[in-house]
Amino acid sequence: MNQVIEVMKQHRSIRKFEEKPVEENLIRTILEAAQHASTSNFVQAYSVINVVDTSKRAQIAELAGPQPWIEQCPLFLVFCADLKRHDKACGMCGMEMVKGYTEQFIIATVDAALVAQNTMLAAESLGLGGVYIGGIRNDPEKVCHLLDIPDLVYPVFGMCLGYPAEDPQLKPRLPLDIVLKVDRYTDATEQVQLSSYDQVCCDYYNQRECANRDDNWTQQMSRLMCREMRPHMRAFLESKGFPMK
Amino acid sequence: MNQVIEVMKQHRSIRKFEEKPVEENLIRTILEAAQHASTSNFVQAYSVINVVDTSKRAQIAELAGPQPWIEQCPLFLVFCADLKRHDKACGMCGMEMVKGYTEQFIIATVDAALVAQNTMLAAESLGLGGVYIGGIRNDPEKVCHLLDIPDLVYPVFGMCLGYPAEDPQLKPRLPLDIVLKVDRYTDATEQVQLSSYDQVCCDYYNQRECANRDDNWTQQMSRLMCREMRPHMRAFLESKGFPMK
Repeated sequence: MNQVIEVMKQHRSIRKFEEKPVEENLIRTILEAAQHASTSNFVQAYSVINVVDTSKRAQIAELAGPQPWIEQCPLFLVFCADLKRHDKACGMCGMEMVKGYTEQFIIATVDAALVAQNTMLAAESLGLGGVYIGGIRNDPEKVCHLLDIPDLVYPVFGMCLGYPAEDPQLKPRLPLDIVLKVDRYTDATEQVQLSSYDQVCCDYYNQRECANRDDNWTQQMSRLMCREMRPHMRAFLESKGFPMK
Repeated sequence: MNQVIEVMKQHRSIRKFEEKPVEENLIRTILEAAQHASTSNFVQAYSVINVVDTSKRAQIAELAGPQPWIEQCPLFLVFCADLKRHDKACGMCGMEMVKGYTEQFIIATVDAALVAQNTMLAAESLGLGGVYIGGIRNDPEKVCHLLDIPDLVYPVFGMCLGYPAEDPQLKPRLPLDIVLKVDRYTDATEQVQLSSYDQVCCDYYNQRECANRDDNWTQQMSRLMCREMRPHMRAFLESKGFPMK
């Protein structure tokens, strides 16, 4: 098709990396391309922290799982939703920022995600691979402490990047006909469609070389969703200046 | 460099389109590639609604601004954060979903954003252009009503796509050295950096062919941020099953 489509369709999470470093100018090339992502009203409400310090890496690896690849990967980035810069911009113009709205939280979180997805794809197009690390939200307060992340900024997720030292299989996505609707949201046939998809996932888990297991999508989701998910997030966000008014 | 990087760096918002439709199989190619985006714990917590109905388009165009390109564009997609499918998966496995956490809201919102950014890039790689429409959050209740969007689903943003009938200039992003930090969040020099960036933006606004104006980034942000931003969002989200516990 074309390189963009091919790179997307080849995406797998990579957690094992060659020891080869990612050169400084390559990091800049990737991030400067990523920055061209769309941004709500031009706010560009994100910052990226490149975590080089091995002790900080080790502590984040521990709190996020443990996920040792956070310590081992050549490049570990933390993507933050950032409204502090806008508070500063208001100050520079003699204005006062009106803070704390859920809407602002959405804008900054989405902006960080759009830049991150560009980062992943730009990296993959240059032969790198990686994985998002939502696990930093296990203990976001400690992540803020380690990285001096101030109020009006919060770490949304991390990203491990490097040259792949593994070649995992592609994971089958939900069939397009489940996620794509026309003119109105309907899910009348979804249960049947999910059962077929369960079989596809089951085959994938049975056949894959690493971590072969007997599982399917609805089982996996029900295990994940039948427990409290990071119930500290709300209080954490409030404490960082995101009270979700 | 390579096509992925080039497509990213050529991104501009496109709001004027040729009358040429986007073929059904092209829509599928784009979205099937986009679906390979990373997803937290494989949840794939999003749905996409392709709005074809002209009356629905007209009403969304009105409430979002008005933004007439929503009515005029060949393809208008609404990206939803969707946890309803997971509730169903729990039911299929005889389990009960534990709902309402801020964390789940973040996961679903980020998942929708990652798929959307892939969609934009895949489309651009095939000669299309487009623009995100955050304006659907002006009246998300009405959007839900028009598109039958149920509880545990919310429309995050829309996206207009089509063959470009305009060729706007590239908009200068924040310098990488402002957004990229190493090991810790620092913004000691940001005010000086923002002043230089203001000059870059000022030159851009003065020179651009359409909507030439005297403006800069901090001024723009201070105008945007010194007023209440969609203060209805919190109550709306609660009403849709996202109480942000």
